[in-house]
Amino acid sequence: MRIVDTILDKRDGRELSAAVINELIASYTAGEIPDYQMAAFLMAVYFRGMTAAETAALTLAMAKSGATVDLGAVPGVKVDKHSTGGVADTTTLVLAPLVAAAGVPVAKMSGRGLGFTGGTIDKLEAIPGFRTALSSEEFLANLGRIGVAITGQTADIAPADGKLYALRDVTATIESIPLIASSVMSKKIAAGADKILLDVKTGSGAFMKTPEQAFKLAETMVGIGTLVGRETMAVISTMHEPLGLAVGNSLEVAEAIDILSGAGGAPELREICLTLGAHMLVMAGKAADFAAGYRKLQELLDGKEALAKFAALVAAQGGNPDVVANRALLPLAAIRHIVASPAGGFVQSVDAARIGYAAMILGAGREYKGQQIDLGAGLVMHCRLGDKLALGQPLATLYTADPTKIPSAEAAISAAITIGPDKAARPELILGTVTAAGINMV
Amino acid sequence: MRIVDTILDKRDGRELSAAVINELIASYTAGEIPDYQMAAFLMAVYFRGMTAAETAALTLAMAKSGATVDLGAVPGVKVDKHSTGGVADTTTLVLAPLVAAAGVPVAKMSGRGLGFTGGTIDKLEAIPGFRTALSSEEFLANLGRIGVAITGQTADIAPADGKLYALRDVTATIESIPLIASSVMSKKIAAGADKILLDVKTGSGAFMKTPEQAFKLAETMVGIGTLVGRETMAVISTMHEPLGLAVGNSLEVAEAIDILSGAGGAPELREICLTLGAHMLVMAGKAADFAAGYRKLQELLDGKEALAKFAALVAAQGGNPDVVANRALLPLAAIRHIVASPAGGFVQSVDAARIGYAAMILGAGREYKGQQIDLGAGLVMHCRLGDKLALGQPLATLYTADPTKIPSAEAAISAAITIGPDKAARPELILGTVTAAGINMV
Repeated sequence: MRIVDTILDKRDGRELSAAVINELIASYTAGEIPDYQMAAFLMAVYFRGMTAAETAALTLAMAKSGATVDLGAVPGVKVDKHSTGGVADTTTLVLAPLVAAAGVPVAKMSGRGLGFTGGTIDKLEAIPGFRTALSSEEFLANLGRIGVAITGQTADIAPADGKLYALRDVTATIESIPLIASSVMSKKIAAGADKILLDVKTGSGAFMKTPEQAFKLAETMVGIGTLVGRETMAVISTMHEPLGLAVGNSLEVAEAIDILSGAGGAPELREICLTLGAHMLVMAGKAADFAAGYRKLQELLDGKEALAKFAALVAAQGGNPDVVANRALLPLAAIRHIVASPAGGFVQSVDAARIGYAAMILGAGREYKGQQIDLGAGLVMHCRLGDKLALGQPLATLYTADPTKIPSAEAAISAAITIGPDKAARPELILGTVTAAGINMV
Repeated sequence: MRIVDTILDKRDGRELSAAVINELIASYTAGEIPDYQMAAFLMAVYFRGMTAAETAALTLAMAKSGATVDLGAVPGVKVDKHSTGGVADTTTLVLAPLVAAAGVPVAKMSGRGLGFTGGTIDKLEAIPGFRTALSSEEFLANLGRIGVAITGQTADIAPADGKLYALRDVTATIESIPLIASSVMSKKIAAGADKILLDVKTGSGAFMKTPEQAFKLAETMVGIGTLVGRETMAVISTMHEPLGLAVGNSLEVAEAIDILSGAGGAPELREICLTLGAHMLVMAGKAADFAAGYRKLQELLDGKEALAKFAALVAAQGGNPDVVANRALLPLAAIRHIVASPAGGFVQSVDAARIGYAAMILGAGREYKGQQIDLGAGLVMHCRLGDKLALGQPLATLYTADPTKIPSAEAAISAAITIGPDKAARPELILGTVTAAGINMV
């Protein structure tokens, strides 16, 4: 195979065989194909797309490019969850202990954040003592003992994806559905779960701006799962404002504890966790149907079993489990500042990206890879889409160690929220699901 | 400017400003933009194209990326000619002395061949002693004294184009009209001519397979010339078989001498030289109209003035001018082999690319950059499209130093020529012209 012929075939819209895709990915991972040829290939994929068979072949080639996790020793059906992400997406912190409390083993590999906010691994590290780099022995041992373990994704999982993602990031080839789908699915497949539940967000605060894009991405990922023999389901939900109230690492842990304690937090965050969890219970054979799973999870929240599982997870990974009762154990930035509403009226829109940007300015996120973040920085929103506000009413509280950052963060918050005279309707949270059988609108 | 934003703008179809294109090319030439980002950009250009203003800006940025030639000291209107190339395209060897004999100064920078056959510089080096690397003083002095000089293009002319072309070659981004047009025009502009005549070929033996593509390329190049203030005209001609009879360096020099002597050569090669030359005379103000220019050039051929100018060119650049009267001075490969027709009938088609490939096998062309070529190798065709052939009649004579190459070259010739019972029509040679005023079909 000459790589230039592969680029030419893709450029001209001819389907590539699995053998060609395997060789392309293996040679690229081995450093035998230069970045400039792969960059041209990726841009051709951006314009031409990939067939379902090509996308599945690419996914498997990337999944096989490094180590794969064998969860065969863990009893039960392992269902992995992946969110396409967004601002204030604290789902994993709630969902992992909640589903584990229902008897579904949760073996999770998560990443750090790049962009506005920290990733799940960053958030967990806000808990004093919490270790996010588990050995595989420890990972499997914890999983067997308490049914949940969360560790940072190591570089030997799907290294081809890591290398390709870094190249896509600097060549304007991120926004390609087959490339996004294969990137997500390659890591999930390498991570060893039996089944995969995808949480695909759409809206102004999400990566997929329209429901059409979100359903298309979901169908592509479910199609990959079907072709490679891993049952995959996707839930499509809207994100037209930050999902939770808190944006920032300690602050999001605190909100997760609020939800697990039944003591507050955004209702939408609770609702999405119950919905995703109920589907996971059905997939794992732990609930007869969605409604039964949903009721079971409500009981586990109300009965504090999910909270207890969170405490067990924290303790098992070296953190102080007292954090669930005592928020003062979480690091919080010393300087607080309340942003007041400049007008009275109804909240017409909340630009989640701008809210995330404000949190990043305050120290909660990274502008570049490897940047140190302030685990105690961030913000908590006090208003939601559709709320009625009086002039001067608090919009958000900012947390930072650096008071010079407050004016620009405050400006970003003010620019993010539009206030008008008419009550704005809240969009539906859950739009539908996608399985191998097709789309099911709610 | 972040280069990734420039890639994104092009990917999404937004027009780039001249300032952005200038910075892109300057930074790339300086090694400040990695090849992988430029490769993604080029593939985005392949799919999105470029506006006339973008194409002109790219051309000027590449023309300014290195040295530019100043022909201001040479009296008269300097008209440069560029052919898009093809198999057996010996045009420059005839046209340069012919037009110079009519009093139009010909200051030509030419390249070596990559692909099936040698370039003009390779062909001239087949003449014993001919020097193709002139100093700029010598180039200008010869031009002033005899009105014609031909030198190899140095690396300091449009170096950005050289670097981009090498990258396009390995990233499947050659076949883009704005990239082809800007590559050609950047070199012509840097080479200093006042006006530019383009010889754009179309057909099975040319790079542009259809007349539509050829006219589009011509319009793009004429558009660039107009926008940058250099009068540009294009002649569109067909190439459905090798233009001349000879393919190979010495053999093409011999055919050029045949045409200049009125002693043979392909009639189509003579006709295209007269046509292009007549337009150049009009552009240079040396003929009132096309017909007058054409007549004048016929007289210069018939009167052997053009042949004498060729001899003067050879002498001025260190070659032996006796070559015009004594072909034995040209190196010719010792082994000759005649390919006989396997059937009787009419020549239905001649695949010029396969004929060129046969010549390359015999040693006349390069498979890779820098490869040594055999100046005496190649082939001479004995049949033309539409000719009637008897069984066993000679199709071509092969010339090589390596007899082991003959069977595969013979197979390529046989595969290139289809013979059938019906007389095939010869397509028109000249299809039309393109100027700033528009298309003029013949």
